[in-house]
Amino acid sequence: MMTPPFFVGPGLDRADPLRARPEAIARLASDPRAKALAWADGAPALDEAGRLRWGPAGGDEPLFLGFDADRSPCFSALPQGQVETTGSARFQLLGQLGDTEAPLFAAALSLANWHRRHGFCSVCGDRTAPNRGGWSRACATCSAEHYPRVDPVVIMLAEHEGRLLLGRQPQYPEGRYSALAGFVEPGESLEGAVARELKEEAGIDVTGVTYLASQPWPFPSSLMIGAFARAEHDELTIDRSELDDARWFTRADVAASLAGEEGAAFLPPPRFAIARSLLDWWLAAA
Amino acid sequence: MMTPPFFVGPGLDRADPLRARPEAIARLASDPRAKALAWADGAPALDEAGRLRWGPAGGDEPLFLGFDADRSPCFSALPQGQVETTGSARFQLLGQLGDTEAPLFAAALSLANWHRRHGFCSVCGDRTAPNRGGWSRACATCSAEHYPRVDPVVIMLAEHEGRLLLGRQPQYPEGRYSALAGFVEPGESLEGAVARELKEEAGIDVTGVTYLASQPWPFPSSLMIGAFARAEHDELTIDRSELDDARWFTRADVAASLAGEEGAAFLPPPRFAIARSLLDWWLAAA
Repeated sequence: MMTPPFFVGPGLDRADPLRARPEAIARLASDPRAKALAWADGAPALDEAGRLRWGPAGGDEPLFLGFDADRSPCFSALPQGQVETTGSARFQLLGQLGDTEAPLFAAALSLANWHRRHGFCSVCGDRTAPNRGGWSRACATCSAEHYPRVDPVVIMLAEHEGRLLLGRQPQYPEGRYSALAGFVEPGESLEGAVARELKEEAGIDVTGVTYLASQPWPFPSSLMIGAFARAEHDELTIDRSELDDARWFTRADVAASLAGEEGAAFLPPPRFAIARSLLDWWLAAA
Repeated sequence: MMTPPFFVGPGLDRADPLRARPEAIARLASDPRAKALAWADGAPALDEAGRLRWGPAGGDEPLFLGFDADRSPCFSALPQGQVETTGSARFQLLGQLGDTEAPLFAAALSLANWHRRHGFCSVCGDRTAPNRGGWSRACATCSAEHYPRVDPVVIMLAEHEGRLLLGRQPQYPEGRYSALAGFVEPGESLEGAVARELKEEAGIDVTGVTYLASQPWPFPSSLMIGAFARAEHDELTIDRSELDDARWFTRADVAASLAGEEGAAFLPPPRFAIARSLLDWWLAAA
């Protein structure tokens, strides 16, 4: 059994049925407990304790996120600016974020990211406007309604005779290795995407594919789907356009790396990445 | 262990690395074995044996689907017309489609569906053009690249003390009951989406959620993710805006329904729906 990855948990009642009732949302916006999310550098702003920062709701925030654990109605303006989706700024942000607020952070950021890149109708090219409390955008010209993207990504550990395949992407910090990953394509099953990505990136054929856990990843709008696969052989053919490197690591390698031992074989993925949860699971599994 | 649902299987080598090489795709288009998918009523056309119909590739089809089982390069024009995404036309089509060609059918239809609704750039509103063998669209005005949508949907069986919760949507044929389902939202895990949908649609609280199987569903671009959940109680509060009805069924009810017995409690979902695979699994599980 896996422990839930970062970003997964309670803390946000999305109150979906209210979204179809703009008058109810307007009433909630004038509730004295209504609050509006603060943003900084394109992402939800955090205080020094890693908690989300809020201000009073002004009544004109187009995003109705739902109710938080205290049953306060949570709103947001459409933020300006882009959050960096790779590299150190993102990692610094997530290093500060507390576990309990991570689910609300993920929902707000993912939704905002989608609005930022969907101001126009993909069907007719005209401008769209937020609808349904900000959980869709509507085109008045062609009547199309557009819903936020959630992009499924498979991320997987492949094992061969007790050793684990990990790779490093060019943008990783020095020494880091992590689980291989890739977007699920139209017409593919999750299991098919796992097999295809392992074959493409590392030349590996797999037999069984097992689901392990999932995690929303709001950079910008992914749903990470963690899996485990049995490799049929250990001969690697690495796609150097995708990966700097890929290697097999022993259980002792992984244990030392997760423990942060000096001289360990690799630098593991950070605690907020599902890849880290997958490695923890693999090490704990007998 | 589940048997793979319909639409899942080999039969299409997507040849992803070729997509970045337009000159290689152009060479394949003039290969004597290259073939172009025929379309009818907005969907891939089928012959009387339920196989995909193909014609010679003309060299100007913008979609490069990949290689089929015979290593023939498979292309497609952008089809005209919409396939009906609910109701009898779709079911008639799928009733004719053979298992082995279903994966290619799903990939082609899902990709085409996306192109049909994404002729314009969501970032700037200008026209976009197919790119990367039709697996993306590029905007020359703002340089945005857009990738096909794959919309994850959770579809789940909930069990309470040996009985199974199934519901019926308004558009179902008379007597049909099936697994409850709903789109995964931004910021949600699969497990969170399963729990939310069961609570919203049927008022059910769940404890454990287990992944079972996945299936691409090209009407228009879903990825169905099948799950099993343990319900904490059996008291139903049905959302009548979503469901006509929801009920608990015994193992005997499900067995008789799947066997097509006269007077069975409900009409089961068709063989090509993952819901049917989930019911088969549940009945076979001890």
